[in-house]
Amino acid sequence: MEIGRVVGTVVSTIKSPGLNSFKLLVVTPIAVTQEMTSPDDTATYVAVDLVGAGEGEIVLVTRGSAARIPDAADVPTDAAIIAVVDNVQIGSENAYSKA
Amino acid sequence: MEIGRVVGTVVSTIKSPGLNSFKLLVVTPIAVTQEMTSPDDTATYVAVDLVGAGEGEIVLVTRGSAARIPDAADVPTDAAIIAVVDNVQIGSENAYSKA
Amino acid sequence: MEIGRVVGTVVSTIKSPGLNSFKLLVVTPIAVTQEMTSPDDTATYVAVDLVGAGEGEIVLVTRGSAARIPDAADVPTDAAIIAVVDNVQIGSENAYSKA
Amino acid sequence: MEIGRVVGTVVSTIKSPGLNSFKLLVVTPIAVTQEMTSPDDTATYVAVDLVGAGEGEIVLVTRGSAARIPDAADVPTDAAIIAVVDNVQIGSENAYSKA
Amino acid sequence: MEIGRVVGTVVSTIKSPGLNSFKLLVVTPIAVTQEMTSPDDTATYVAVDLVGAGEGEIVLVTRGSAARIPDAADVPTDAAIIAVVDNVQIGSENAYSKA
Repeated sequence: MEIGRVVGTVVSTIKSPGLNSFKLLVVTPIAVTQEMTSPDDTATYVAVDLVGAGEGEIVLVTRGSAARIPDAADVPTDAAIIAVVDNVQIGSENAYSKA
Repeated sequence: MEIGRVVGTVVSTIKSPGLNSFKLLVVTPIAVTQEMTSPDDTATYVAVDLVGAGEGEIVLVTRGSAARIPDAADVPTDAAIIAVVDNVQIGSENAYSKA
Repeated sequence: MEIGRVVGTVVSTIKSPGLNSFKLLVVTPIAVTQEMTSPDDTATYVAVDLVGAGEGEIVLVTRGSAARIPDAADVPTDAAIIAVVDNVQIGSENAYSKA
Repeated sequence: MEIGRVVGTVVSTIKSPGLNSFKLLVVTPIAVTQEMTSPDDTATYVAVDLVGAGEGEIVLVTRGSAARIPDAADVPTDAAIIAVVDNVQIGSENAYSKA
Repeated sequence: MEIGRVVGTVVSTIKSPGLNSFKLLVVTPIAVTQEMTSPDDTATYVAVDLVGAGEGEIVLVTRGSAARIPDAADVPTDAAIIAVVDNVQIGSENAYSKA
């Protein structure tokens, strides 16, 4: 799974019915190192939100068929936000703690 | 999921039967940033169209097994256009609005 | 899905039984742009042929679990040739037409 | 499958229920060569731990749908630690042996 | 599918039960060109062996969910060696023939 930061939203009216009940959030990948930086914001992507994440939050994202487990079996998504991150520990360093 | 721009079409007569009832559209990836540019047009690929997208439109594309959810179970596709994008908001910036 | 050119064949006698009834073709990726060039021929890969493609032909290839849809459910393949391309249109340009 | 080193942990309270009973470990990819180095620590990712791996250990990680086999069918994970590595042999060289 | 060379082995005692009956081999990708070279040995990975491949042999590897077809349904593997390669023909050139 990847760690990312929610940076925006996508809105569509013409879409596959399976997407209707989900917010589409724009996520920028965060490198899971002590610095927790965004190495490449052109790698930003769109994920369905399964846990009510807010803008700017650090989240855990699963990709591929896992993105439809277990509540989104008929949703055509290949990326899902499955957790809001409270804390990332790298060795003895606290790389991130939710404010 | 990725955001892309429809830039062309592919036509085939000799093909797997599952593809018969779908338009095959050429999509160039768009980086979901405030500039909404195409970082690498050699990364262009082909997707089945599930929502009637037109040339030049900004679309949402799902990749992998999700591309067969829920209406294309016997279609050998690994990429599907699942929405036409109306609006992309990055932070407080409106990065894209459909004309 | 990707567009590629068939450039060769692979032959094996010791192999998973599921591969027995399929030709294994070597495919070089083609960038779906007006020039239709091969950006990186070290990215060449091997696909099962589901439509009888010939050497030198421009083909449509699906990757991942889609490669087993619908006729190859017990074939251990992650890439399948699912169409021979007749024509690629990029905007108003005819990028490729089968001779 | 990939070889990696466990370098940290991720803690979340707001998360998909399927994640509840699993430790989330941060893994840095290790290049499986005689040197066993980390070519790119920005490629670090998060995996569920299926074998009780400890920090600093060299582990085997499976990605994609395999990460839910066989004990995690309803866990939204795309990466799972499935072995602690005792030994890596490259040709006649012993590239790694667990202390 | 990819072509690779078997360059080593991985041994683990603490592992998912599904791996027990399989050899874990280290495979370096081979670019399927006339030179058949290894462009990047840091891209080396680990695969289960389904056909009894030996060290130094050129093999065909399938990745993703295909790696569990058809004999490894409950094996948490995302890469499997499914053939030993006898011959690779690129155009009129014989790029590789098993000694």
